[in-house]
Amino acid sequence: MRDVSIIGIGQTPVAEHWGKSLKDLAAEAIQEAIKDAQVERVDALYVGNMCSGTLNGQEHLGALISDWVGLRGVEAVKIEAACGSGAAALRLGYVAVAGELADFVVVAGVEKMTDRPGQQVTAALAMAADADFEAQNGLSFVALNALLMRRYMHEYGVPHGDFAPFTINAHKNAIGNPYALFPHAVTAQDFCVARMVADPVNLLDSSPVCDGAAAVVLCPTSLARSLGARPVRIRASSSSTDTIALHDRRDLLGLEAAALSAAKAYRQAKVTPQDIDLFELHDAFTIVSVLSLEACGFAERGRGVRLGTEGDIAIGGQIPITTMGGLKARGHPVGATGIYQVIEVALQLREQAGANQVRDAHLGMAQNIGGSGATVVTTILEAVE
Amino acid sequence: MRDVSIIGIGQTPVAEHWGKSLKDLAAEAIQEAIKDAQVERVDALYVGNMCSGTLNGQEHLGALISDWVGLRGVEAVKIEAACGSGAAALRLGYVAVAGELADFVVVAGVEKMTDRPGQQVTAALAMAADADFEAQNGLSFVALNALLMRRYMHEYGVPHGDFAPFTINAHKNAIGNPYALFPHAVTAQDFCVARMVADPVNLLDSSPVCDGAAAVVLCPTSLARSLGARPVRIRASSSSTDTIALHDRRDLLGLEAAALSAAKAYRQAKVTPQDIDLFELHDAFTIVSVLSLEACGFAERGRGVRLGTEGDIAIGGQIPITTMGGLKARGHPVGATGIYQVIEVALQLREQAGANQVRDAHLGMAQNIGGSGATVVTTILEAVE
Repeated sequence: MRDVSIIGIGQTPVAEHWGKSLKDLAAEAIQEAIKDAQVERVDALYVGNMCSGTLNGQEHLGALISDWVGLRGVEAVKIEAACGSGAAALRLGYVAVAGELADFVVVAGVEKMTDRPGQQVTAALAMAADADFEAQNGLSFVALNALLMRRYMHEYGVPHGDFAPFTINAHKNAIGNPYALFPHAVTAQDFCVARMVADPVNLLDSSPVCDGAAAVVLCPTSLARSLGARPVRIRASSSSTDTIALHDRRDLLGLEAAALSAAKAYRQAKVTPQDIDLFELHDAFTIVSVLSLEACGFAERGRGVRLGTEGDIAIGGQIPITTMGGLKARGHPVGATGIYQVIEVALQLREQAGANQVRDAHLGMAQNIGGSGATVVTTILEAVE
Repeated sequence: MRDVSIIGIGQTPVAEHWGKSLKDLAAEAIQEAIKDAQVERVDALYVGNMCSGTLNGQEHLGALISDWVGLRGVEAVKIEAACGSGAAALRLGYVAVAGELADFVVVAGVEKMTDRPGQQVTAALAMAADADFEAQNGLSFVALNALLMRRYMHEYGVPHGDFAPFTINAHKNAIGNPYALFPHAVTAQDFCVARMVADPVNLLDSSPVCDGAAAVVLCPTSLARSLGARPVRIRASSSSTDTIALHDRRDLLGLEAAALSAAKAYRQAKVTPQDIDLFELHDAFTIVSVLSLEACGFAERGRGVRLGTEGDIAIGGQIPITTMGGLKARGHPVGATGIYQVIEVALQLREQAGANQVRDAHLGMAQNIGGSGATVVTTILEAVE
């Protein structure tokens, strides 16, 4: 198995891109990543995307985008694992390069969600849940996360206001990210009075519907040193699943797939949570941040919120999270999110995070989640000296 | 790179499965394949599917199906490349095992198309084409193939009736396949008077809308010999793309991606078309059979129809095709088709094809196509002695 590195990154601003199509967005990110990598050959293109069929009337994104971006003929497919599609595509790109089946693989994530009315977007996102037992009975994606949050608050006696630091931190960090959708601060007061979406999840607990694309170029680390950008090595890549429906979980608040996926990644990288310098987690809702921190070993069960209230999640804190704004404030174009996360870790490890730079960042982790924890892909990245 | 074999196969009948859901079908095929393989461990599940979002209101098939079939926790994703989704998933499963990233991978293809009215199915299938330039202007998938067929007939002076042998051969072979949707003979007369769909493509030129699932278990050939079924070795696996829109093609009748994908596969397997004992090709429409035979080197340009009219495509002929009924008569549940094809080649190489057995079949090829030739995946399989 070969060592694999990221040698090029590219991203579009996360926004409502009314003037650009799905393939325009993907092409923009891919071209930037290829330019950053300074590669002249691409062996395969893996595209992470969830909703192109339901929201854009277009499947077959592999062939579509490879041609549009000037890679006609190349092996190309779309990979889908709900909101975890981006990192699921990255994982397969990693497999191809690590296993010596390809040398240069471009992995892109793209989603264009703002062309349709909100109701259609809600219905499309609910396809990440169980159509027969959840969506069919009216459970939208926010509603499922509301059940999780309500249970957590009940179980551990946590007031809703304790989740505010996660949103405040994400928005603060987004100010330093030129690609973020919401580069502006919010206060604890804003959080407390935000409009309710699905009780107890309010608007400021929730990541937004938006458009965006992000791409990385992978190659063997042995070839990386002679190429463009400073390589960032993939120390671990792992993927696990859990039941898709919440009611089938053995342990509702345990995020078993996150724990399993993180444990595999720690084992592969031969590290512990204490070695991780920053963590781009999947803050689709504030409750998910908390559950992820607990499942990945950064806090004990029921104590994840404390990392927020005690300031540990800030840049400069013990375990900085959502350092460029996270899903909440950078934005969450679902199939693209997993690639945005990895790019943000890469920027930190390349010391290109500007005002948001985590000092002495050597090891970073990204975790992308599909559904309410049903697919979890964990990636541990390291700066190559 | 390790040698990879198929050690288990499973398929549901192709039918209108009104009593079974998408996940029921997938689980049935997967359980049969695992039983056939006699494996006790599965490292990953790759699911090929095109239309679950648009026709079944369900994405996230990796997590959904892995749990439903009793593989909770395993790495699992959906892979989409339009009608080529099944073989695209197989290709990634092959990559994982060949590259030593996994030992036992289940690859399933599943599609449930009959729950929705025909108009919705036509719209869903059109998402394999270019949404902006083809589907947007009313070109359905049949219409695109009608353009190809009309051009071929004009270019080479071929009458429509010359395509009849492809349909007659497929239906004849389906009689010997207990999983086929249409196990009954059709005549040249039936073909000539069949209802027109999109001139010149008539009903008997076209594969049907239907439901089905198929699955295979892959593992390293070195481990295969001690396990269940007689292993079938993957001698080559390759994937290529072309422009998604027909009007962008350099050579409309050339099926460039099929030629490229086949050439890569021949190179990897170190064989020529003359070495291939049977060819499960992608006969979504009779014109596609002809173009595939030409692109893959079995006939010169403009001479592909002759293989039909001269009897070469029959079992016992020079290059038997659609030996178990093909897309036309076994049926074409789109995302599952690529796996059905490979299973049928495996049955031939395991000498389990019953009345349809191709004598002394040692090397078989399957080719699965997404869109009008935009994604083409070629697999060459060999009997392991």
